[in-house]
Amino acid sequence: MSGTMRAIVKHHRGVGAELQEVEIPVIKENEVLIKVKATSICGTDVHIYNWDEWSASRVNPPYVFGHEFAGEVVEVGSKVNTFEEGDYVSAETHLVCGHCPQCLTGKYHICENTQIIGVDTQGCFAEYVALPAENLWKNPTEMPTDIASVQEPMGNAVHTVLNGDVAGKSVAVIGCGPIGLMAVGVAKAAGASQVLAFDLNGYRLELASQMGATTVVNSGIEDPVAKAKSLTDGHGIDVVCEMSGHPIAMDQGFKMITNGGRMSILSLPTKPVTIDVTNDIVFKGIEVQGITGRKMYETWQQVSRLLHSKQVDLTPMITHHLPLEEFEKGFQLMNEGKCGKVVLHP
Amino acid sequence: MSGTMRAIVKHHRGVGAELQEVEIPVIKENEVLIKVKATSICGTDVHIYNWDEWSASRVNPPYVFGHEFAGEVVEVGSKVNTFEEGDYVSAETHLVCGHCPQCLTGKYHICENTQIIGVDTQGCFAEYVALPAENLWKNPTEMPTDIASVQEPMGNAVHTVLNGDVAGKSVAVIGCGPIGLMAVGVAKAAGASQVLAFDLNGYRLELASQMGATTVVNSGIEDPVAKAKSLTDGHGIDVVCEMSGHPIAMDQGFKMITNGGRMSILSLPTKPVTIDVTNDIVFKGIEVQGITGRKMYETWQQVSRLLHSKQVDLTPMITHHLPLEEFEKGFQLMNEGKCGKVVLHP
Amino acid sequence: MSGTMRAIVKHHRGVGAELQEVEIPVIKENEVLIKVKATSICGTDVHIYNWDEWSASRVNPPYVFGHEFAGEVVEVGSKVNTFEEGDYVSAETHLVCGHCPQCLTGKYHICENTQIIGVDTQGCFAEYVALPAENLWKNPTEMPTDIASVQEPMGNAVHTVLNGDVAGKSVAVIGCGPIGLMAVGVAKAAGASQVLAFDLNGYRLELASQMGATTVVNSGIEDPVAKAKSLTDGHGIDVVCEMSGHPIAMDQGFKMITNGGRMSILSLPTKPVTIDVTNDIVFKGIEVQGITGRKMYETWQQVSRLLHSKQVDLTPMITHHLPLEEFEKGFQLMNEGKCGKVVLHP
Amino acid sequence: MSGTMRAIVKHHRGVGAELQEVEIPVIKENEVLIKVKATSICGTDVHIYNWDEWSASRVNPPYVFGHEFAGEVVEVGSKVNTFEEGDYVSAETHLVCGHCPQCLTGKYHICENTQIIGVDTQGCFAEYVALPAENLWKNPTEMPTDIASVQEPMGNAVHTVLNGDVAGKSVAVIGCGPIGLMAVGVAKAAGASQVLAFDLNGYRLELASQMGATTVVNSGIEDPVAKAKSLTDGHGIDVVCEMSGHPIAMDQGFKMITNGGRMSILSLPTKPVTIDVTNDIVFKGIEVQGITGRKMYETWQQVSRLLHSKQVDLTPMITHHLPLEEFEKGFQLMNEGKCGKVVLHP
Repeated sequence: MSGTMRAIVKHHRGVGAELQEVEIPVIKENEVLIKVKATSICGTDVHIYNWDEWSASRVNPPYVFGHEFAGEVVEVGSKVNTFEEGDYVSAETHLVCGHCPQCLTGKYHICENTQIIGVDTQGCFAEYVALPAENLWKNPTEMPTDIASVQEPMGNAVHTVLNGDVAGKSVAVIGCGPIGLMAVGVAKAAGASQVLAFDLNGYRLELASQMGATTVVNSGIEDPVAKAKSLTDGHGIDVVCEMSGHPIAMDQGFKMITNGGRMSILSLPTKPVTIDVTNDIVFKGIEVQGITGRKMYETWQQVSRLLHSKQVDLTPMITHHLPLEEFEKGFQLMNEGKCGKVVLHP
Repeated sequence: MSGTMRAIVKHHRGVGAELQEVEIPVIKENEVLIKVKATSICGTDVHIYNWDEWSASRVNPPYVFGHEFAGEVVEVGSKVNTFEEGDYVSAETHLVCGHCPQCLTGKYHICENTQIIGVDTQGCFAEYVALPAENLWKNPTEMPTDIASVQEPMGNAVHTVLNGDVAGKSVAVIGCGPIGLMAVGVAKAAGASQVLAFDLNGYRLELASQMGATTVVNSGIEDPVAKAKSLTDGHGIDVVCEMSGHPIAMDQGFKMITNGGRMSILSLPTKPVTIDVTNDIVFKGIEVQGITGRKMYETWQQVSRLLHSKQVDLTPMITHHLPLEEFEKGFQLMNEGKCGKVVLHP
Repeated sequence: MSGTMRAIVKHHRGVGAELQEVEIPVIKENEVLIKVKATSICGTDVHIYNWDEWSASRVNPPYVFGHEFAGEVVEVGSKVNTFEEGDYVSAETHLVCGHCPQCLTGKYHICENTQIIGVDTQGCFAEYVALPAENLWKNPTEMPTDIASVQEPMGNAVHTVLNGDVAGKSVAVIGCGPIGLMAVGVAKAAGASQVLAFDLNGYRLELASQMGATTVVNSGIEDPVAKAKSLTDGHGIDVVCEMSGHPIAMDQGFKMITNGGRMSILSLPTKPVTIDVTNDIVFKGIEVQGITGRKMYETWQQVSRLLHSKQVDLTPMITHHLPLEEFEKGFQLMNEGKCGKVVLHP
Repeated sequence: MSGTMRAIVKHHRGVGAELQEVEIPVIKENEVLIKVKATSICGTDVHIYNWDEWSASRVNPPYVFGHEFAGEVVEVGSKVNTFEEGDYVSAETHLVCGHCPQCLTGKYHICENTQIIGVDTQGCFAEYVALPAENLWKNPTEMPTDIASVQEPMGNAVHTVLNGDVAGKSVAVIGCGPIGLMAVGVAKAAGASQVLAFDLNGYRLELASQMGATTVVNSGIEDPVAKAKSLTDGHGIDVVCEMSGHPIAMDQGFKMITNGGRMSILSLPTKPVTIDVTNDIVFKGIEVQGITGRKMYETWQQVSRLLHSKQVDLTPMITHHLPLEEFEKGFQLMNEGKCGKVVLHP
């Protein structure tokens, strides 16, 4: 296919982005071309839009960004035999090398040579996107496009929550951005007896309630550690999912965890964090897990099943739908924290 | 306390049991005396009542049998400082040695020298029972006595189902006796995406539906393996909980399991079972787990939380309440399979 | 490359094989051509040579069999960029589909659509073999060709022994064929405190001693269960590796295992096996694992490191070296059990 | 038994200790009296001797300190039936409550109400010590008293190293004090392919070599991260055991670990540590474990077996034997780092 398409282009090394008319990408023999039906805004996209320190050091404008989407296969490379025109797909956004020790042992999500779609390569905030067939995930035809688009970040939530047992346990989710909200829903579905959600933003705490939190705590108003202890007979929380990236909130997470508990960190604090290793990690005998990406493709399978069975309902947290043209409004909502997930429709 | 009490006594080496007036047990310094409020009939009790081969080789009439109960502490031994009069309790029924390699490594449930309350010692089908304080579990005051009584068998179900992941997975429960019914509820609560229940008894399959099974299969009418495969796109079941003890049903479990799946066996087949080790275990790369008792006391904690949070509701499967005097009717119901759980009230 | 080569051909549906001059295979674009330096005889090859029931139902003569080898890359397909001429390689022998649920979750070794080199495809008992690049494993240049050839079966041993902890534990290896002998060496290297080797063949028990067994037991002379119990203060063995395939030996394995122990079965009994599930699996609370193939490529990494570090020395169990032409002698040795591993040199 | 005995008493709230003649302790009914044959100096004892901030906040002079020992039972309390006079014993030094959630689930080593012998109670730097029978561990009669005395700290090393797989892996031990030296020996025995030992102290690095390190690195001379990377083809270390407590060394540990690796921290940094959570934990997808005490009594069983089988030989690291009276010299050696383990003989 040739011609032009509308796309959101990170056009310069500074704040903002532009809607431009660009060439439809040409696929390689191992790639497919996908017509994007829905594409959602990730926190990473906001970093790139805002042009923070990390994005200045990582991305190379001008390029099309965005990596969460659902769409339809419209063209198939000559070497692709696993997908065909008309297939309804989303994509794993980590492009991995396949030959480092991590890839060789099935831990692709921590590949030493990972590239990320829409960060290191052309992305999906556009009418069309070209991707390697081996990164595609086939969606069930009845899945709405907005739900299909947010499977990728839901994978982060699933990877974090289910990286250990939660059935019959108390789970704290610290930070109720979109992935935190999803984590609340996943913890509830996976049998956590208590799901405590923490944030400073009342709007997002209300969404956390809708996602199934058994208790929501505004950490700016109530002492989060005292609250967590009081709800667990003074013993503390079994599993803490850290999704805020704030040093104070992370410290509260370490303080509320029970002896022998699990702290799973998905967030990316912008600076090194000071941790009381002796009292909060060693004497408590806890386990701290760094979580990145999604297990390929175990996590996708879990996401798919939790959605298909309706164990997790994401509709409360997908709060805004906008045409691609109104992407500026979407980034504004994200920057203000006045939204759950924002989905763009090209 | 002294005097006499009513008790169901296994009075002779043959079928049946008798209600007798016997001495209230005298406690030792490490024991407490409990006034029984509710006591439920286990399959093991039915074996003893029916005087099958196993019970003839194990138990020594005359003695009081029964081991599932809830009651109130009415007297406390001189060395007991963890319980007091008025406490509302149930009990772990395995009396363990504390010094074998299994006990020393925290695996008390497979103690080499296990004795079982009501099998190897005096039981709780009576107005009072004397037990070591260290086997007691304190119940929340608001828990109904029938629910509190059946925590012990629910522990078997929890131990079986949660001896590995189930969130987002397909779980088959083979055999819908009381513990199988509980297993259905536990698997559902712990986030299984599909819970398939198998039995030959329509009455019990109806109870399985009420406990949350997503599919019930009468294995006498429908091919259970074909059904399981068809519901999993031909790949098979992730986790099979074998609770029937029947060689044919167990074989069906092995045939329906997916490559890399888990087969957790709680049942006690009366004879050795012929298994196609090569095709059903080795080539499939599955894991077969023998499950006995309850992890002490991790399983009790899980049971307690799943009930307290109302994640599992046992009321549908507690089908009959009888005064202690009508125990004969209870055993008849159990023998006929026309019940879920039968609770006796002294 | 074109021309002819010498190869051992399974030429008809009956006992035996023939050395023939056949065409050198033509590689596809994703394949490489390897000049075979050493190729070793596996038990599977013996089944095919002997034309037993299994091979009659699986393989399609005429074809070149054999699957264990080490060799040098001499030609590279147009799409291969991970290997080049001169590379020194061996190969994983499972060809997997990449899209079944097992492959998608990294459990390639239990792929639902596995094909095996030399069983379902042309093999390596020849001067040259053509294989997909993605199945190759690069060997360190200093590794002797016979050692490099037997990495594949050593992978079976490593997969079996290291599928759970062995450090400080007692390990029993039942059946001291080549893989059993390797398992002895692996268990010793991985820190087992006791390694008991069982067989009926004194020659192989002597090899087991050389591989590091702390005790060897001729099960035809001494009671293996009594011996195992006596060496573990009556408690039994922590980890049993079943590599005999004999029902009686397997039963002895179940009887000697301790409560909570692990039984890892790599062997392939020719008929269903009768197991006392109640007493040997359930009451003991053990775990039975079916083991097949090698984790791809975690197991290869482990093999490579254990050999490179010289923690495992395979030289005692590679007992015979023969030119390819003398393959008949090799099969005879294997059938008589008068060897460890037999390596052929084309 | 009554009378007086020699003991090292922490006599005042300041630096130092005194040899005094004190009353032989009187046992309670659940205790035994032990005649101490050997007692070794722990880093914790040095903290108490030096009267650092931690000890000033924790211990209450005057009292007898010390907690590592081996000795003979000379008197048994009326309720003790598991030990008798003449038994040769050592002791687990954590006194646990038995009723907190951690104890109830078998994780006694992280009991919420732990008391430590010789810190919170009277210790064993004396001719006699009185201890609860349930904390004793029976030693094999042939075990030398110095080896038996240091089983407790070896338990820390075993708990740290074996809290995950090491067979075929690269293991770094950061900090070669006595427990670090033991960790080197344990990692080697448990099948690590590479064991790298790091310290600033050449004397201790020499001991690390004797304990089996495959590489020793003086981090003051050589760049430890570069060295670790160069020995692992640039990929980094699989398992880092942090036993130094120094922020710089800990940071080096985080930098040298491979993606998906394990960092097990036994050390107790005196101040909070600044950690690059984003790059060193999250993006790498590693697991950080806090390790405290010994699993009761799984770790003791492992220690016992590794010593009994001679898989670990501690003799190189037990560098000094002194009569109890010369304890000052022992503490001086420890403060100067000119020793492995120092054993006192009362």
